[in-house]
Amino acid sequence: MKVEYINPFLNATVRVLKTMASLEVSPAKPYIKKNSNAVGDVSGIIGVTGDTQGSLSISFTAECIKQIVSNMLGEKINEINDDVKDAVGELTNIISGDARRELYEKGLNLQGSIPTVVAGPGHEIRHIGKGPTIAIPFQSDAGPITVEVCFNR
Amino acid sequence: MKVEYINPFLNATVRVLKTMASLEVSPAKPYIKKNSNAVGDVSGIIGVTGDTQGSLSISFTAECIKQIVSNMLGEKINEINDDVKDAVGELTNIISGDARRELYEKGLNLQGSIPTVVAGPGHEIRHIGKGPTIAIPFQSDAGPITVEVCFNR
Repeated sequence: MKVEYINPFLNATVRVLKTMASLEVSPAKPYIKKNSNAVGDVSGIIGVTGDTQGSLSISFTAECIKQIVSNMLGEKINEINDDVKDAVGELTNIISGDARRELYEKGLNLQGSIPTVVAGPGHEIRHIGKGPTIAIPFQSDAGPITVEVCFNR
Repeated sequence: MKVEYINPFLNATVRVLKTMASLEVSPAKPYIKKNSNAVGDVSGIIGVTGDTQGSLSISFTAECIKQIVSNMLGEKINEINDDVKDAVGELTNIISGDARRELYEKGLNLQGSIPTVVAGPGHEIRHIGKGPTIAIPFQSDAGPITVEVCFNR
Protein backbone atom coordinates (compact mmCIF):
# COMPACT_ATOMS: atom_id res chain seq x y z
CA MET A 1 0.00 0.00 0.00
CA LYS A 2 1.39 3.37 -1.01
CA VAL A 3 1.91 5.88 1.80
CA GLU A 4 -0.07 8.47 -0.15
CA TYR A 5 -3.12 6.19 0.20
CA ILE A 6 -3.11 6.53 4.01
CA ASN A 7 -3.62 10.27 4.31
CA PRO A 8 -7.08 10.27 2.67
CA PHE A 9 -8.38 8.07 5.51
CA LEU A 10 -6.70 10.25 8.11
CA ASN A 11 -8.10 13.44 6.54
CA ALA A 12 -11.58 11.98 6.10
CA THR A 13 -11.75 10.92 9.76
CA VAL A 14 -10.76 14.40 10.94
CA ARG A 15 -13.20 16.11 8.56
CA VAL A 16 -16.19 13.84 9.15
CA LEU A 17 -15.98 13.77 12.96
CA LYS A 18 -15.66 17.55 13.00
CA THR A 19 -18.59 18.04 10.64
CA MET A 20 -20.94 15.39 11.99
CA ALA A 21 -20.05 15.30 15.70
CA SER A 22 -18.41 18.71 16.33
CA LEU A 23 -15.39 16.73 17.55
CA GLU A 24 -11.79 17.79 17.00
CA VAL A 25 -9.60 14.70 16.65
CA SER A 26 -5.79 14.72 16.52
CA PRO A 27 -4.09 12.00 14.49
CA ALA A 28 -0.87 10.43 15.77
CA LYS A 29 1.66 8.73 13.50
CA PRO A 30 0.20 5.80 11.53
CA TYR A 31 1.92 2.47 12.10
CA ILE A 32 1.88 -1.06 10.73
CA LYS A 33 -0.29 -3.21 12.96
CA LYS A 34 1.58 -6.25 14.27
CA ASN A 35 -1.20 -8.00 16.17
CA SER A 36 -4.96 -8.02 16.44
CA ASN A 37 -5.19 -6.80 20.03
CA ALA A 38 -8.41 -5.20 21.18
CA VAL A 39 -8.83 -1.71 19.90
CA GLY A 40 -12.30 -0.88 21.09
CA ASP A 41 -15.79 -1.76 22.15
CA VAL A 42 -17.71 -0.64 19.05
CA SER A 43 -16.36 -0.80 15.49
CA GLY A 44 -17.63 0.07 12.04
CA ILE A 45 -16.26 -2.02 9.17
CA ILE A 46 -16.61 -1.42 5.45
CA GLY A 47 -15.19 -3.32 2.48
CA VAL A 48 -13.89 -1.77 -0.72
CA THR A 49 -13.40 -3.14 -4.22
CA GLY A 50 -12.30 -1.74 -7.56
CA ASP A 51 -8.67 -1.01 -8.51
CA THR A 52 -7.78 -3.07 -5.43
CA GLN A 53 -9.67 -4.83 -2.64
CA GLY A 54 -9.49 -3.79 0.98
CA SER A 55 -11.25 -3.03 4.21
CA LEU A 56 -11.56 -0.12 6.62
CA SER A 57 -12.43 -0.22 10.29
CA ILE A 58 -12.98 2.53 12.81
CA SER A 59 -13.04 1.52 16.49
CA PHE A 60 -14.21 3.42 19.53
CA THR A 61 -14.26 2.82 23.27
CA ALA A 62 -17.79 2.70 24.68
CA GLU A 63 -17.36 6.06 26.44
CA CYS A 64 -15.99 7.69 23.31
CA ILE A 65 -18.76 6.62 20.96
CA LYS A 66 -21.47 7.53 23.50
CA GLN A 67 -20.02 11.06 23.60
CA ILE A 68 -19.77 11.25 19.81
CA VAL A 69 -23.32 10.08 19.21
CA SER A 70 -24.56 12.41 21.97
CA ASN A 71 -22.97 15.23 19.96
CA MET A 72 -24.49 13.96 16.70
CA LEU A 73 -28.02 13.52 18.04
CA GLY A 74 -28.06 16.43 20.48
CA GLU A 75 -29.17 14.27 23.38
CA LYS A 76 -27.34 12.38 26.12
CA ILE A 77 -26.64 8.76 25.14
CA ASN A 78 -26.07 6.40 28.07
CA GLU A 79 -25.87 2.97 26.46
CA ILE A 80 -24.71 1.24 23.27
CA ASN A 81 -28.15 0.96 21.70
CA ASP A 82 -29.28 0.61 18.10
CA ASP A 83 -29.14 4.40 17.59
CA VAL A 84 -25.43 4.25 18.45
CA LYS A 85 -24.83 1.34 16.08
CA ASP A 86 -26.69 3.09 13.27
CA ALA A 87 -24.64 6.23 13.90
CA VAL A 88 -21.40 4.23 13.74
CA GLY A 89 -22.57 2.76 10.44
CA GLU A 90 -23.30 6.24 9.10
CA LEU A 91 -19.94 7.60 10.25
CA THR A 92 -18.12 4.63 8.71
CA ASN A 93 -19.98 5.06 5.44
CA ILE A 94 -19.26 8.77 5.19
CA ILE A 95 -15.59 8.45 6.19
CA SER A 96 -15.18 5.69 3.60
CA GLY A 97 -16.89 7.79 0.93
CA ASP A 98 -14.89 10.91 1.76
CA ALA A 99 -11.60 8.94 1.69
CA ARG A 100 -12.52 7.23 -1.58
CA ARG A 101 -13.24 10.61 -3.18
CA GLU A 102 -9.74 11.80 -2.23
CA LEU A 103 -8.19 8.49 -3.38
CA TYR A 104 -9.95 8.88 -6.73
CA GLU A 105 -8.16 12.21 -7.19
CA LYS A 106 -4.91 10.29 -6.59
CA GLY A 107 -5.82 7.78 -9.29
CA LEU A 108 -7.27 4.96 -7.15
CA ASN A 109 -10.88 4.14 -8.01
CA LEU A 110 -12.69 2.22 -5.26
CA GLN A 111 -16.29 1.29 -4.54
CA GLY A 112 -17.62 0.82 -1.01
CA SER A 113 -19.81 -1.93 0.41
CA ILE A 114 -22.40 -1.27 3.10
CA PRO A 115 -21.04 -0.88 6.65
CA THR A 116 -21.23 -3.56 9.33
CA VAL A 117 -21.14 -2.57 12.98
CA VAL A 118 -19.70 -4.79 15.70
CA ALA A 119 -20.39 -4.20 19.39
CA GLY A 120 -18.67 -6.18 22.14
CA PRO A 121 -16.35 -5.14 24.95
CA GLY A 122 -12.70 -5.42 23.94
CA HIS A 123 -13.21 -7.18 20.63
CA GLU A 124 -10.25 -7.79 18.34
CA ILE A 125 -10.23 -7.02 14.63
CA ARG A 126 -8.01 -8.62 12.02
CA HIS A 127 -7.99 -7.53 8.38
CA ILE A 128 -7.09 -10.42 6.08
CA GLY A 129 -5.47 -8.86 3.03
CA LYS A 130 -2.27 -9.36 1.07
CA GLY A 131 -0.84 -6.03 2.28
CA PRO A 132 -0.08 -4.81 5.79
CA THR A 133 -2.76 -3.34 8.04
CA ILE A 134 -2.09 0.32 8.74
CA ALA A 135 -3.44 1.68 12.04
CA ILE A 136 -4.07 5.40 12.50
CA PRO A 137 -4.59 6.37 16.15
CA PHE A 138 -6.52 9.52 17.03
CA GLN A 139 -6.92 11.37 20.30
CA SER A 140 -9.96 13.48 21.13
CA ASP A 141 -11.74 14.99 24.12
CA ALA A 142 -14.20 12.07 23.85
CA GLY A 143 -11.43 9.46 24.00
CA PRO A 144 -9.21 7.43 21.67
CA ILE A 145 -10.28 6.34 18.18
CA THR A 146 -8.44 3.92 15.88
CA VAL A 147 -8.84 3.72 12.12
CA GLU A 148 -7.37 0.72 10.32
CA VAL A 149 -7.02 0.11 6.60
CA CYS A 150 -5.73 -2.88 4.66
CA PHE A 151 -5.44 -3.30 0.90
CA ASN A 152 -4.42 -6.20 -1.26
CA ARG A 153 -1.86 -3.91 -2.91
CA MET B 1 -33.52 -8.61 -1.66
CA LYS B 2 -34.92 -11.36 -3.85
CA VAL B 3 -35.44 -14.75 -2.19
CA GLU B 4 -33.45 -16.39 -4.99
CA TYR B 5 -30.40 -14.40 -3.80
CA ILE B 6 -30.42 -16.17 -0.41
CA ASN B 7 -29.89 -19.74 -1.57
CA PRO B 8 -26.44 -19.11 -3.09
CA PHE B 9 -25.14 -18.14 0.37
CA LEU B 10 -26.80 -21.17 1.94
CA ASN B 11 -25.42 -23.50 -0.72
CA ALA B 12 -21.93 -21.98 -0.58
CA THR B 13 -21.76 -22.40 3.20
CA VAL B 14 -22.73 -26.07 2.98
CA ARG B 15 -20.29 -26.75 0.13
CA VAL B 16 -17.30 -24.87 1.51
CA LEU B 17 -17.50 -26.25 5.07
CA LYS B 18 -17.82 -29.76 3.67
CA THR B 19 -14.90 -29.32 1.29
CA MET B 20 -12.55 -27.36 3.54
CA ALA B 21 -13.41 -28.70 6.99
CA SER B 22 -15.06 -32.07 6.29
CA LEU B 23 -18.07 -30.73 8.19
CA GLU B 24 -21.68 -31.49 7.29
CA VAL B 25 -23.88 -28.51 8.15
CA SER B 26 -27.68 -28.49 8.03
CA PRO B 27 -29.39 -25.20 7.19
CA ALA B 28 -32.61 -24.23 8.98
CA LYS B 29 -35.14 -21.79 7.54
CA PRO B 30 -33.68 -18.34 6.82
CA TYR B 31 -35.41 -15.47 8.62
CA ILE B 32 -35.37 -11.69 8.70
CA LYS B 33 -33.20 -10.54 11.58
CA LYS B 34 -35.04 -8.24 13.93
CA ASN B 35 -32.27 -7.36 16.36
CA SER B 36 -28.51 -7.43 16.62
CA ASN B 37 -28.23 -9.89 19.50
CA ALA B 38 -25.04 -11.83 19.97
CA VAL B 39 -24.62 -14.56 17.42
CA GLY B 40 -21.16 -15.77 18.18
CA ASP B 41 -17.64 -15.36 19.47
CA VAL B 42 -15.73 -15.21 16.17
CA SER B 43 -17.10 -13.72 12.94
CA GLY B 44 -15.85 -13.21 9.43
CA ILE B 45 -17.24 -10.19 7.56
CA ILE B 46 -16.90 -9.33 3.88
CA GLY B 47 -18.33 -6.46 1.87
CA VAL B 48 -19.65 -6.68 -1.69
CA THR B 49 -20.15 -4.08 -4.40
CA GLY B 50 -21.27 -4.13 -8.01
CA ASP B 51 -24.90 -4.42 -9.15
CA THR B 52 -25.77 -3.69 -5.51
CA GLN B 53 -23.87 -3.12 -2.28
CA GLY B 54 -24.04 -5.46 0.68
CA SER B 55 -22.27 -7.39 3.37
CA LEU B 56 -21.94 -10.98 4.49
CA SER B 57 -21.05 -12.29 7.93
CA ILE B 58 -20.50 -15.79 9.23
CA SER B 59 -20.43 -16.26 12.99
CA PHE B 60 -19.25 -19.16 15.10
CA THR B 61 -19.17 -20.03 18.76
CA ALA B 62 -15.64 -20.45 20.11
CA GLU B 63 -16.06 -24.22 20.47
CA CYS B 64 -17.44 -24.55 16.96
CA ILE B 65 -14.68 -22.66 15.18
CA LYS B 66 -11.97 -24.47 17.16
CA GLN B 67 -13.41 -27.77 15.92
CA ILE B 68 -13.70 -26.50 12.34
CA VAL B 69 -10.13 -25.19 12.23
CA SER B 70 -8.88 -28.40 13.88
CA ASN B 71 -10.48 -30.24 10.95
CA MET B 72 -8.98 -27.83 8.41
CA LEU B 73 -5.44 -27.92 9.82
CA GLY B 74 -5.40 -31.54 10.95
CA GLU B 75 -4.26 -30.64 14.46
CA LYS B 76 -6.08 -29.94 17.71
CA ILE B 77 -6.78 -26.22 18.17
CA ASN B 78 -7.34 -25.15 21.79
CA GLU B 79 -7.55 -21.36 21.60
CA ILE B 80 -8.72 -18.57 19.33
CA ASN B 81 -5.28 -17.69 17.98
CA ASP B 82 -4.17 -15.99 14.77
CA ASP B 83 -4.32 -19.31 12.88
CA VAL B 84 -8.02 -19.51 13.72
CA LYS B 85 -8.64 -15.92 12.64
CA ASP B 86 -6.79 -16.47 9.37
CA ALA B 87 -8.82 -19.62 8.77
CA VAL B 88 -12.07 -17.70 9.40
CA GLY B 89 -10.92 -15.08 6.89
CA GLU B 90 -10.19 -17.79 4.34
CA LEU B 91 -13.56 -19.51 4.90
CA THR B 92 -15.39 -16.18 4.60
CA ASN B 93 -13.54 -15.32 1.41
CA ILE B 94 -14.25 -18.67 -0.23
CA ILE B 95 -17.92 -18.75 0.82
CA SER B 96 -18.34 -15.22 -0.53
CA GLY B 97 -16.64 -16.13 -3.79
CA ASP B 98 -18.64 -19.33 -4.21
CA ALA B 99 -21.94 -17.50 -3.52
CA ARG B 100 -21.02 -14.68 -5.90
CA ARG B 101 -20.30 -17.17 -8.66
CA GLU B 102 -23.80 -18.65 -8.23
CA LEU B 103 -25.35 -15.16 -8.03
CA TYR B 104 -23.61 -14.24 -11.27
CA GLU B 105 -25.40 -17.15 -12.95
CA LYS B 106 -28.66 -15.60 -11.67
CA GLY B 107 -27.75 -12.25 -13.21
CA LEU B 108 -26.29 -10.46 -10.17
CA ASN B 109 -22.69 -9.37 -10.67
CA LEU B 110 -20.87 -8.65 -7.40
CA GLN B 111 -17.28 -8.05 -6.38
CA GLY B 112 -15.92 -8.95 -2.94
CA SER B 113 -13.72 -6.94 -0.59
CA ILE B 114 -11.13 -8.58 1.64
CA PRO B 115 -12.47 -10.29 4.78
CA THR B 116 -12.26 -8.82 8.26
CA VAL B 117 -12.34 -11.14 11.27
CA VAL B 118 -13.76 -10.12 14.64
CA ALA B 119 -13.04 -12.06 17.83
CA GLY B 120 -14.75 -11.26 21.12
CA PRO B 121 -17.05 -13.31 23.34
CA GLY B 122 -20.72 -12.67 22.51
CA HIS B 123 -20.22 -9.78 20.14
CA GLU B 124 -23.20 -8.34 18.27
CA ILE B 125 -23.23 -7.66 14.53
CA ARG B 126 -25.45 -5.18 12.73
CA HIS B 127 -25.51 -4.80 8.95
CA ILE B 128 -26.41 -1.26 7.93
CA GLY B 129 -28.06 -1.54 4.51
CA LYS B 130 -31.26 -0.34 2.90
CA GLY B 131 -32.68 -3.88 2.77
CA PRO B 132 -33.43 -6.36 5.56
CA THR B 133 -30.74 -8.55 7.07
CA ILE B 134 -31.40 -12.22 6.32
CA ALA B 135 -30.04 -14.71 8.85
CA ILE B 136 -29.41 -18.34 7.86
CA PRO B 137 -28.88 -20.63 10.87
CA PHE B 138 -26.95 -23.87 10.48
CA GLN B 139 -26.53 -26.82 12.80
CA SER B 140 -23.50 -29.08 12.75
CA ASP B 141 -21.71 -31.60 14.92
CA ALA B 142 -19.26 -28.82 15.78
CA GLY B 143 -22.03 -26.47 16.92
CA PRO B 144 -24.25 -23.68 15.56
CA ILE B 145 -23.18 -21.36 12.74
CA THR B 146 -25.02 -18.26 11.53
CA VAL B 147 -24.64 -16.63 8.14
CA GLU B 148 -26.12 -13.18 7.60
CA VAL B 149 -26.48 -11.20 4.40
CA CYS B 150 -27.77 -7.72 3.75
CA PHE B 151 -28.08 -5.89 0.43
CA ASN B 152 -29.12 -2.38 -0.47
CA ARG B 153 -31.69 -3.86 -2.83
